Formats: sequence, C-alpha cells, structure tokens
Amino acid sequence: MAAAATTTRPAVPLLKDELDIVIPTIRNLDFLEQWRPFFQAYHLIIVQDGDPSKTIKVPEGFDYELYNRNDINRILGPKASCISFKDSACRCFGYMVSKKKYVYTIDDDCFVAKDPSGKEINALEQHIRNLLSPSTPFFFNTLYDPYRDGADFVRGYPFSLREGVPTAVSHGLWLNIPDYDAPTQLVKPLERNTRFVDAIMTIPKGTLFPMCGMNLGFNRELIGPAMYFGLMGDGQPIGRYDDMWAGWCSKVICDHLGLGVKTGLPYIWHSKASNPFVNLKKEYKGIYWQEELIPFFQSATLPKECTTVQKCYIELAKQVKAKLGKVDEYFIKLADAMVTWIEAWDELNPPPGGKSTELPNGAAATK
Amino acid sequence: MAAAATTTRPAVPLLKDELDIVIPTIRNLDFLEQWRPFFQAYHLIIVQDGDPSKTIKVPEGFDYELYNRNDINRILGPKASCISFKDSACRCFGYMVSKKKYVYTIDDDCFVAKDPSGKEINALEQHIRNLLSPSTPFFFNTLYDPYRDGADFVRGYPFSLREGVPTAVSHGLWLNIPDYDAPTQLVKPLERNTRFVDAIMTIPKGTLFPMCGMNLGFNRELIGPAMYFGLMGDGQPIGRYDDMWAGWCSKVICDHLGLGVKTGLPYIWHSKASNPFVNLKKEYKGIYWQEELIPFFQSATLPKECTTVQKCYIELAKQVKAKLGKVDEYFIKLADAMVTWIEAWDELNPPPGGKSTELPNGAAATK
Repeated sequence: MAAAATTTRPAVPLLKDELDIVIPTIRNLDFLEQWRPFFQAYHLIIVQDGDPSKTIKVPEGFDYELYNRNDINRILGPKASCISFKDSACRCFGYMVSKKKYVYTIDDDCFVAKDPSGKEINALEQHIRNLLSPSTPFFFNTLYDPYRDGADFVRGYPFSLREGVPTAVSHGLWLNIPDYDAPTQLVKPLERNTRFVDAIMTIPKGTLFPMCGMNLGFNRELIGPAMYFGLMGDGQPIGRYDDMWAGWCSKVICDHLGLGVKTGLPYIWHSKASNPFVNLKKEYKGIYWQEELIPFFQSATLPKECTTVQKCYIELAKQVKAKLGKVDEYFIKLADAMVTWIEAWDELNPPPGGKSTELPNGAAATK
Repeated sequence: MAAAATTTRPAVPLLKDELDIVIPTIRNLDFLEQWRPFFQAYHLIIVQDGDPSKTIKVPEGFDYELYNRNDINRILGPKASCISFKDSACRCFGYMVSKKKYVYTIDDDCFVAKDPSGKEINALEQHIRNLLSPSTPFFFNTLYDPYRDGADFVRGYPFSLREGVPTAVSHGLWLNIPDYDAPTQLVKPLERNTRFVDAIMTIPKGTLFPMCGMNLGFNRELIGPAMYFGLMGDGQPIGRYDDMWAGWCSKVICDHLGLGVKTGLPYIWHSKASNPFVNLKKEYKGIYWQEELIPFFQSATLPKECTTVQKCYIELAKQVKAKLGKVDEYFIKLADAMVTWIEAWDELNPPPGGKSTELPNGAAATK
C-alpha cells in the first residue's frame, strides 16, 4: 500500500502547483513565519474579513492574492450576498476563486505542532497524503487507514472494497486548545488537548461528523461546490456554524457520490481559545437548531439524477428550504444563499461545455 | 467526564466478582504467568479444544473452571452440536456457562503489550473502563472517546446525544502480529503492527466492522446471546470466521437495540502468526462468501417487536436461513445452530419469570 503518513519532507513540495492555501483573516499574517518551511512553495489566497480599508501585512517571500470585501463585491456583484461578512465563513470565497485542484485552509491562530518525538509536523503534506490515498467508507478497518505504511486491511475486510474510493476531504485536528463549543469552554476553561492520536480514518458512509474549518484540506474538483460556509456573522442570527454547515452538506453529498472523508492526522497547534462569552452569543441558536438540523441531514437522501456536486447541492438547498424553513426563517434565506453560491461558483468556474461536469472516474453515484 | 483510560492499577481490581475471563486452548496455559498481576484476581473459564483426554496445565494460583468436549456434550446434550470442535469458536461455550455480567476473552498466544512509555498495559482494566463508560454511535466525535480524561465532545456535537448509550462490546487491538487474513499474511509475511494509536472510539450505528476474538470484552447481560461464534472447524467447510460472524450479528443487534460498540485500546502483544497456508484452507470459502454476507448484514433490519437480544437473534437466524441459504447450504445448518444456541443459552441462563429479559434501563430499541 502507498505511504499515507510519511513525514519526511520531499525534495519538491507535493502538488506545489495544484493546491492553494486559503486563509481568512482580520490581522497581519505573522503566523506564516512559523509555517514558512512548509507553505512558502504554495500560492496563498487571503480573504480579508471586516474593514477593507485596513492593510493586512503578509510576511515577505510568500506568493499570494488578497481579497477584501470591496473585491468580493466587485467580483460577485449582487451574488456577493452569499459571502458572509465579519465572520471567518468568508473563507469560502477563496475556494471559489481558486483555480487549483486542491485547497488547504487554516486559521491564523494555528501554528506548527510537534509529534511525540518532538519533530515539527508538516500538516499540509499530511493532508495531501490523505487526499491522494483512497478512503474506505463502506466498512470499518480496525487498524485505521489501511493505506498507511505498516498497516493494511484486517482479516474479514471484504476484498471487493479494498480499492477504496477517492478522498474528497481531509479533516485535521488540533493540539493544545480543543475545538469546543462555548458551554464546554465555560465548564472546562483549562482543558487542553495533549493526546497525540497517531491515526487517520475514514468516517463511515451514513455517519455525520462535526467538521472544523481550522485545519482542513479538500479536493476542489471533487467536492468544492459543497464547501459553502453559509451565512454567518454580520446581519445573521448565528455564527461558528459555518464549518459545521459545510461539513453536514459535504458529507451527505460525499456519501451520495461515493467519495471519502478522512479525519485524524495532521495536528496543528491551536494557540488561543476564543472568548467563550462571545462564542455563546454566536452559537446559542445553533446549539438548539442543531438538534433538528442533524436529524435532517442524517435522513437526507438525494435522487439518482444528482450526479454532480452542483446538482446535489441545489437539491439539498431545496430540501433545506422545505424542511428547515419551518425551524426558522433564517433557513429560507440560507437556502437561497446556497443557490446563489452555486450560481456564483459556476460563473467563476465555468464547466467545459457550459454544463456541470460529471464526476471523474472512480467516483460514481451510489444511492 | 469520567476517566475511561487511566492505566494506574486500582487497589481492588475493577469488577473482580462480576467478570469472567474466557480462554479457549489446546495447550498448557503458561501464557498466564505474564498476565498474573492483571488476571489473578478474576475467575477463569477455560474451554479445552480438541482431545479431551489431554491434560491442560494451568499455572498455580489461578481460580478456574475447565470444560473439555466431554463436559460440553454432557452439559448440553444434543444441543452441544451448536458448539464448534477443533476451532477456537468453542470459546463461546464459556460465555454461555458464565454467570457474570461481563466477559473478557483472550487467545493463549497473546501477551502483555507495552505502551510507548514502556509501561505494561493492563488490557483487562482498559476493557472494563471501556465497558463502564458510554458509547456514542449516533454521531462521530473527532476527538475520539469523549469520556476519556482530557477529552470531550467537540463543537457541533448535539447536546441531546452527549449522554451516550450503554456500551455492550469493547474490541481491543494487537501490537506485533496484526490480524490479517491468509492472502495478506502471504503477501506481507514480515509486516508487524508497531503503531500504538492512543484512541478508543465508538463504531457508528449502521457501520459493520471485522470483530476479532483475540482480545475482546463484552457485557453478557446486554449482548451475550448474540456472541455466538458459529459452526467452524471440525466437519465444517470454514474456519477463522467465528469472531467475524459474532461481530456482524452482534453489531446489527447493538444498532437495533441502541447499544454501543467500542474499538481501539487496549492493545495486547500478539506473539506469533498462524500458518498462512493452513489459514488459507480454512478461510477461502469465507473470503468469497463474505462478499455476500456483508451486504446481507448491512441491509438487515429487525422488527420493533425484537426487544431482547434473544428475539433479535432468532429473527436474524430466520433471515440467515432465508437469504444466505441460497449462497450455500452451510448457512441453513448455521441458522439452525443459531436457534439451538439460543435454546441452550436460555436453558443455562433461565431468565426471571421464564421469559427472555427485556433490556435494562437506558438501552431501548431504536429502530
């Protein structure tokens, strides 16, 4: 099996010209200094949140493009309404303007973590290895990722499933400050994640998970249009559910299209906890809404005709409007924004022949 | 959250009078010497396989009962036909005669493993902690078992699901010789599992996994009657699928009854690989049958009326006969043996009032 987790740095950075790093920020990007050995070869897309007149400083030597709110409004026109303002959900604009096959997105309070041997972890490289090796969503492998060096499929694993399916998403984790909600932050202010779990695994088909946008890689060609981070922040009744929303939608679509989602390695070092009181204000509607949202996504099914991510996403938007519109009118607005997002995506990413592209080989609809 | 993975040895061994250790064997149990500090306080049930005239030596100081084939025949009469001969599947007889709430079963080629700090791992204690803390089958927690020290539910995890469900099964792993099938053994004769993954996780509802019987704990009261290891070995067309069979059946029933299955820690040290040529002969029918068995179990559903493990198991036996009987007549025989097993179980474990017991509080049917 191919190595999926070697951490020695290759001579030429993997996928150097096929991956963009997307960073949403409101401040100078000094955090990039620590990432220089791992990120400098890649192109950055910086999405500046908040006041567009402010200048964001980027350390020298990085190749980047930067978009502020004025740019977003200019490029998308009226469709800019689907991009959140004053919320890191704005990062998904970067996914849309990227022209690369892969995207890695990271928060500006995330630093280089060390493995138990003290070695610095090249998170980006591990994400790439996760994305380049298959996933196994149809049956659980007890020794975790069977494609890693030193691992394989265990006894009893069906041979017909051992080729796996293409991996669409690589969800990385965080040492130090865990990604807790406000109530848990309030109850456990001192809890730190110190456990390095040396595993990568596929989240099984039919299982939802809380996708965190702090340290996330994905294959834009396979799943990009489902990575919409919703309407959050300024003018919206909710925040901090942007990545969750993208996680629920993209997982349902991956399951439908036979694509894989991996979680586990790599770790980044999450430096500081956000303010739990501010978070509580942003989250509280989400905390009760999610009790209805998750059953909705758990039971959502997409018809066979949905053979592209775009078609799946438009169908999901319809179901959101019909079923979640009853939970709160916010979801009617969100469903409309989902449609706008796809329109904007297709405008900036015109598919060959003017139609949504069918999926590449190996990724076929399974429902 | 309660500690689920502390490894300091408690003054009084956990569940000392509520757990039996079941060991199937054909040889003297010298391997117990290494386990003495961890096992000696517990009662052992030894199921002697093969020639009943042979004497099995048990190291001094262990409290045990031993059953050979003559004992099994005497105790079960004609129903003894459901217990395999010349195959470690005979271990399930030990589950049946146990009078305890919990069972831990281990193979006699499994030794004490060490954690990365060099400390000996008390596998039994970790299984007990797994079994005493809840499972979370309805939603994936990216920081693994939320009940361990230093971990919790991450942002986006529904609060209504944070109490979890009772854990029925704790599936432990193996360092050194991994549990591979014969083809993988043949292809990778030198592969050793050296990766210590410091994680315990719930296998999500609806997901099947390859359950290995080498290092396995379970709650007999919650799931015991589903832990039938089938017809293997002498006179049967198949071997090495005993634990797999129990794993598929018990997982389907756990999912139906709202019970949890955990996998991960603890590790044992698996000392020597079995002969891959012999294994291939035992396994080859299973290797192609499993391509039909797994879809069968993946789509199996149980009616609401099945409110006890016994009722679920009898219903599953019916479905096995109806659907898998077409794959091979072996499954008709196996389905009959499944019914015999339940009859024998109920004979040795008469439920209060003469009826199958309903599940205790907290474990309710969910389908």
